Formats: sequence, structure tokens, C-alpha cells
Amino acid sequence: MNFRKDAPIGIFDSGLGGLTVAKAVSEALPNEDIIYYGDTARVPYGIKSQQTIRNYSIEISRFLQAKGVKMIIIACNTASAAAFSGVCEAVGDIPVLNVIDAGTISAIRSGKKHIGVIGTLGTVGSGAYELSLKKANEELIVKSKACPLLVPLAEEGWTDNSIAKQTIDIYLKPFRNNGVEALILGCTHYPLFKDSILEYFNGKPIEIIDSAEAVAEMAKGKLSELDLLNDSGKKGELTCYVSDRPQRFRELAERFIGREIDIKTAD
Amino acid sequence: MNFRKDAPIGIFDSGLGGLTVAKAVSEALPNEDIIYYGDTARVPYGIKSQQTIRNYSIEISRFLQAKGVKMIIIACNTASAAAFSGVCEAVGDIPVLNVIDAGTISAIRSGKKHIGVIGTLGTVGSGAYELSLKKANEELIVKSKACPLLVPLAEEGWTDNSIAKQTIDIYLKPFRNNGVEALILGCTHYPLFKDSILEYFNGKPIEIIDSAEAVAEMAKGKLSELDLLNDSGKKGELTCYVSDRPQRFRELAERFIGREIDIKTAD
Repeated sequence: MNFRKDAPIGIFDSGLGGLTVAKAVSEALPNEDIIYYGDTARVPYGIKSQQTIRNYSIEISRFLQAKGVKMIIIACNTASAAAFSGVCEAVGDIPVLNVIDAGTISAIRSGKKHIGVIGTLGTVGSGAYELSLKKANEELIVKSKACPLLVPLAEEGWTDNSIAKQTIDIYLKPFRNNGVEALILGCTHYPLFKDSILEYFNGKPIEIIDSAEAVAEMAKGKLSELDLLNDSGKKGELTCYVSDRPQRFRELAERFIGREIDIKTAD
Repeated sequence: MNFRKDAPIGIFDSGLGGLTVAKAVSEALPNEDIIYYGDTARVPYGIKSQQTIRNYSIEISRFLQAKGVKMIIIACNTASAAAFSGVCEAVGDIPVLNVIDAGTISAIRSGKKHIGVIGTLGTVGSGAYELSLKKANEELIVKSKACPLLVPLAEEGWTDNSIAKQTIDIYLKPFRNNGVEALILGCTHYPLFKDSILEYFNGKPIEIIDSAEAVAEMAKGKLSELDLLNDSGKKGELTCYVSDRPQRFRELAERFIGREIDIKTAD
């Protein structure tokens, strides 16, 4: 199947966290239209079974396929781990990227050997980053830590107050002196804490790997390779679909993306 | 339809928070068997639409009905607001109680005129307690505040550390000097913070209304009125069904209920 250069890029997440990916993609590829799907009726995925997450992800990918996308980005770490192969099979020749592979490639490129990973309970419990990193280089030392409070803190807008800083202090303490040289932010909400995390490490030479930025770079490379970059010169548009409650999504979306967006309900 | 005295009481919640209700019921009614249903595959309800919550609640109530329960307690504040009448209609003559009515009755009985309510974004946004309290006595002054971080804090086990206390400080500040005489804990997770909340008010004469205890008392009264109290003298059993991921439920359940429980997956 031939895709049109001016077709949109589809991005999906269990909720609104993936907007940090949409933001990174629109910064790396300012001419691309983006269709974002946030499964706000069924968030969070992290507590659901692998089969359930796969079913939901395939359903959403078919929705994006029907919208004519030329690429699908799985912006949800949980879905990246549970549903990547399922989505690839379901959508035929549409190229599919996911944040875990992107974060892994970025970590490998950093040349660091001792990698830390933070994510939700679901992502860390699945061992997905560890598997992916070790598959790329079995000599890597990987240490992971679930940070379940960071998502609700981000949604409350508390990313740099004293509560956020104390929470980061508790969660990141294991990484402070265990030799970790790079830290993967393995949850799409976590880029919002980047400044507080850098401040916590206070000048230590730890590279922060933001999987939103990583997958945006990967998308740029892949579209270029396939000669599918939108060369119209027009500024790309972002359209968001949510499965439930557009109001709360709207309230929070601006904090994630930094500007007003068009939000529709997908029925 | 005649119910058997030794039939179980059904209790349901969107997740595990309702275990504080199961605990209060088993303390108030130690001879009753309890069947608890936690909809862990679809938690949280607070971000979902009214219709979705109603559909899920009716589905679960029919599951409990099929298990032969003599009473259904809606232990989820969100479902109490969105689905009470729907559940009553769906299950015919099974008596149905809900935590919002129970909390309201308890607040009215306290004789206080100025009532505070804390709950999730969904519960507070719905105005359900305010409506229910004003319906009972339109002269009441009701002030509500959403405290979205308390649920994830409870699930992390942080109910009395410095982070919990600072969070409570931020959320409860509006109630400190606004004349509130009674505070309804309008979320099933919140009883876990009772000590920290009492400490925050530091001897102020504020009555804390725990809707878990309130609905347990209501259940006792109703079963007694219907002559349906289990008089076997045997210690009641608690059986839990979850819609997904029994492991995480098991890990957290003990913190909520204070003992080991039997957990099954409802397919």
C-alpha cells in the first residue's frame, strides 16, 4: 500500500500522558498532521492484563488506520510492551513505532553501560525495558524502579513543589549512588518532572533519556527513509480523540502540550 | 422473593477501596458472609461517563445477584452517585444500599449544620453529596473539595508520612477556618488517612464521618428490619472477586482489610 506524504501520523496512549509524545513529534516534525487517540474511558492500562491491553490497542490502531494514518506511534509504555507485535500484525504495512524500542535505542546510542529505568508499576513489573535493553546488549546493567505516584502528581500539576521533590527523593534514592549513568523516563508523564529530576541528581553526570523525544526522532528517521515526510510546508495540525470525558482531557491537555488543541469524542 | 438469612451480602467497588466497607461490615455484622467484587479491570470509575458507570454497576450487581446475595452495598462513591437507581431497578427486590446515602444520613444525625465533603474528582464534580445533603436538609451549608492524590497515596501505603501530611495540609486548608463542623470522607480509600486527618485538625471539634462505618450501620439496621440477620452464630467469610489482576489486589488488600482473604477472578 502506498501512503500519501500528507497523511497524518497516528499516536495513541491509554490517556493523556502520550501528549508529551505528540508534543515531541510536532517539535521534531512541525509539518506533520497528528491524530492523537487517548483511551480516557479505559485508562490506566498498567493495571490490566496483557490480553486486555492488546485487544484495546488493536481496536485503537484500527480506528487510526481508518483515519488514513501513514504511521502509528504507540505512546503508552504499557501498550508498547504488551501490544506492539499485535498492533503490527493488525495494521498490515503501516509502520508502527513504540516508546520502549525508541528509549532502548536512545540508551544504546548514549554508550552508557549502567542504565536506570523508572516507570509505572505495570511497565516496571513487565520488565519490558530490561528485556529490550538486554536484547540489544546483554552486558548492560539495568536497574528499574516503579514510581506510581508520579502520574497522579503530574495530573495534579504538582511537578516541582515540595511534595513532588520529596516523592522524587524517595523514588530515586536507589539511583543516587548505584553507578547508574543514564536514566530512562519510561512513562509518558515523566518528562514533566525532568527539571526536578535533574535538580535531584544535582550536577551528577547522569544522562536523562526522554522516550518521547526518542520516539519523535525515530519517527523522523523512519518517515525520511520511506520518503513519507510531509513536504507541503504547511504547519501541521493536532487533532485529539478521546474515548470518554473530553472535559477533563481538555483541562489537563494544555499543561502537557502547552497550547490549545482540537478535541473530539470517538464513539 | 424470600431471601435466606444465611445468604451473603454483596459489596462492590470499582477497585479495592471498597474493602474498607467490607471491613466495616464484617466488624458490625461478624456472622455475615460477604461477597466482594472489585472491578480492577476497569478502575477508576471517577473519570468515566455516568452511562458507562451505570452499565458497569448493573453488570456487577447481576453477577452478585447470581451469587444469591440478600443485599447489595454499592461501596464506590462514584457508582453510588451514578448508578444507585439503575442498580435498584436491575435487581428487583434485593435491598440496595450506597455509601452516599449512608454518609448523608450519618451527617444529618450528627446534627451539624456546616458539612465538609472530600472525595475524588468524579465524586466532588458530580455534586452528589451536596445534592443528597441538601435534599435531606436544605439549610445545610456544604463545602466540597476533591483530593485526587489521596487514592494513589493510600495504594502506595503512604498514609502518615511527611508527603501524606503535606498533601492533607494542602487539600484540607480550606476547611481549617471556614466553620465546617463535620467532614465526610467521601471516598472509600480515605478512612486510611483518618489519623492523619484528625492530627491535621489538631483537636478542633470537627466530627469525621466515615461512610464505610455509616453504610455498615445502615446494613445492620436494614437486615434487622427485614429479619434477615444471619443468626447461625458462625463467623462470616469474605470472598473477593476481581475482574483483572488478582495479584496486585492481593498485595494491597491486606493493607485495607488487615487480614488474608480469598480472592477469585470473575471471568
